[in-house]
Amino acid sequence: MRQTNTDPSEIWAQSLDTLLVAAWARLQRGVRDKRAAARHVTLATLGRDGWPQARIVVLRGAEKDASVLEVHTDLRSAKIAELQADPRAMLHAWDPRAHLQIRAEVRAEILSGPLVAARWDRVPEGSRMAYGSTPAPGQPIADALAYTKRPNAQDFAVVHLHVQAFDLVHLGADHRRARFERADGWTGQWLAP
Amino acid sequence: MRQTNTDPSEIWAQSLDTLLVAAWARLQRGVRDKRAAARHVTLATLGRDGWPQARIVVLRGAEKDASVLEVHTDLRSAKIAELQADPRAMLHAWDPRAHLQIRAEVRAEILSGPLVAARWDRVPEGSRMAYGSTPAPGQPIADALAYTKRPNAQDFAVVHLHVQAFDLVHLGADHRRARFERADGWTGQWLAP
Repeated sequence: MRQTNTDPSEIWAQSLDTLLVAAWARLQRGVRDKRAAARHVTLATLGRDGWPQARIVVLRGAEKDASVLEVHTDLRSAKIAELQADPRAMLHAWDPRAHLQIRAEVRAEILSGPLVAARWDRVPEGSRMAYGSTPAPGQPIADALAYTKRPNAQDFAVVHLHVQAFDLVHLGADHRRARFERADGWTGQWLAP
Repeated sequence: MRQTNTDPSEIWAQSLDTLLVAAWARLQRGVRDKRAAARHVTLATLGRDGWPQARIVVLRGAEKDASVLEVHTDLRSAKIAELQADPRAMLHAWDPRAHLQIRAEVRAEILSGPLVAARWDRVPEGSRMAYGSTPAPGQPIADALAYTKRPNAQDFAVVHLHVQAFDLVHLGADHRRARFERADGWTGQWLAP
């Protein structure tokens, strides 16, 4: 016989609607709050040689109505080349306090140049150092510090991640898992966890 | 002109040898210590439909001499089917306190049945609930809790992740990045971060 042991503070995990709302709320908090669990999320892509790749990115936007997440990177980074070759990716977040795993199947749209000039103007001076190093990110160098950083708007890329599906897992007293798809209007389907 | 501002507590990031040693030490701590950053790592694989997939796994082993990491899962899970189709994967860990990102390109070897009987005997009773639910993980169910858990040794899979390469990034006062490959004896190469 199964028992239902749900922590009342996590009652949001009990229905499909509120589970999805909770996931978006966690993502949006990651955008606003540097200390939130979903501030640093993992972006998985297909490497150019076919090897799966994953790395930490800072979550810069989460628009529930449009189902779009946003991250920024150097236009010359490996992840951009990978997404240009295959725009399918997964954004993954694990929130230990909420006991919530968020897995988003996304399609990447890469924006740069004049399209992101207004966004660049809002990037703080210190953060601009992340775009425009020489040599380009990932190039071999003779010594650990044999590179220079000079902010360059031409190297600034905004990546819009259009969410196609969510797979959410809540590891509470009971485990719950559900899949939501854009194609069916995000109604959701419970899965065995 | 570049400045060298290295926090003395992170002097291990300054040489290739000690950077690699530090990465292994963090992974090994994840195996031993439930509160360590590398306890929960992300495993990225290639989905059966070609979409990159990533999920949290518990790090269960880290053998530096053999360059093998270990995780456990249900033999019927999607990640097993994915690794059977393509054993290439990436194990990713982010340690915020050490400011260290560990990216390991791995080849998965899946062990089950009699090969892992001794390992199963050492899995604590409570943890065995993770292997053997009905229906199988990821199957649609009519309600959130319409599944049962009954430990089943036949569903227990041990995955050995043979590390082929590391890409390590230290985001200290200075940023450092290096790649290490099994093929060249783990000597390491600095990369532009």
